[in-house]
Amino acid sequence: MNIQLALDRFSVEEAIRIAKNAEDFVDWIEVGTSLIKEYGVESVRKIKNAFPNKVIVADCKTIDNAYYEFDMCFQAGADIATVMGVSPAATIKACIETANTFNKKVMIDLLNTTEEQKKELFQYKEAIFCDHVSKDEQEMTGKKNILTKQADDPLLQFAVAGGISLDTIEHFKDRMPSVVIIGSAITKAVDQRIAAEQFKKIILQWNEENQYENNR
Amino acid sequence: MNIQLALDRFSVEEAIRIAKNAEDFVDWIEVGTSLIKEYGVESVRKIKNAFPNKVIVADCKTIDNAYYEFDMCFQAGADIATVMGVSPAATIKACIETANTFNKKVMIDLLNTTEEQKKELFQYKEAIFCDHVSKDEQEMTGKKNILTKQADDPLLQFAVAGGISLDTIEHFKDRMPSVVIIGSAITKAVDQRIAAEQFKKIILQWNEENQYENNR
Repeated sequence: MNIQLALDRFSVEEAIRIAKNAEDFVDWIEVGTSLIKEYGVESVRKIKNAFPNKVIVADCKTIDNAYYEFDMCFQAGADIATVMGVSPAATIKACIETANTFNKKVMIDLLNTTEEQKKELFQYKEAIFCDHVSKDEQEMTGKKNILTKQADDPLLQFAVAGGISLDTIEHFKDRMPSVVIIGSAITKAVDQRIAAEQFKKIILQWNEENQYENNR
Repeated sequence: MNIQLALDRFSVEEAIRIAKNAEDFVDWIEVGTSLIKEYGVESVRKIKNAFPNKVIVADCKTIDNAYYEFDMCFQAGADIATVMGVSPAATIKACIETANTFNKKVMIDLLNTTEEQKKELFQYKEAIFCDHVSKDEQEMTGKKNILTKQADDPLLQFAVAGGISLDTIEHFKDRMPSVVIIGSAITKAVDQRIAAEQFKKIILQWNEENQYENNR
């Protein structure tokens, strides 16, 4: 299970400083939508330059103009770019094609998708699916992520996002998604390095327990 | 009927130059999603500064983090900002609230919304609804905009978007949406001023005919 550190609502310089504090204990670094819309794709380039050996996720939340946006993100150094699952089918297809051309990956954000849309999307086995409770839903309705049932399909890679903290990460122990996306539980911690280390320790322990189970 | 000039896939400087050519014949100027994601919200600020007397639409295509994104767009000088109709209800609500706080407007993009979602969205009589065939659908499937039936509701304000040209604008003559969004038919024209003037002449003639009909 990889930890994706989500950087949102900061200046690019603050975001880099925070990620430097946490970098030893996180695997992927997400350039949040707010950074891209506030500072442009230059935010992706600067963060890739600051962390050339990390997997960089550009959370561009594409919903149209897919070739242009994905090309732009990959050219700027992103390893993964995001598209909304609620987009028209043509957009999803264009994202997959562009990622294949660059030998990079697509993360499909399942926010507000119907069961029917999900079924269509799950044909893309090469994608990572992000099961996502939005910031607005968290803040305004208190909705929590419980991870969709399809996340147990061993042929699909899943990421889980939405207000995950040291208290709530336990919910995902038995599900073991490929990626757990953590934002403010690290970025707003008094000591960001220690917070990241705590998450990493929990996940390493789960990995060990799983290995023990598998070897029994 | 207002003409909204959509500026996409240009540098901010090119976009301003193009809009200067067309400005006498367009009412609203849209800072396209591609400009916002490529250059950040600074693109909105620069275009508002270049056209302080035009209505500026920030096509930020918000789908989460609504307070932050709408606040950012309005602070940068946008008069209208866009939210995706496929967003969770909490996000739409937050956009409406933020626009009310700033005494500005929301454009709700109906791209890929279901009939059920549209019904929910039409409660917001103060919003402008954008009936939108996406770039990807136009280019990959040849889909054309036929304007949803609800656009005839006199209580709702509608904008229509998606590959509108001098050949296709005729389709909307009997429907008279509040806003017609035109991109490449002006921006890619050999003479952008003449192209904009042609659209304006057509619409002025429709307005006159309508007035004549109403006065009979």
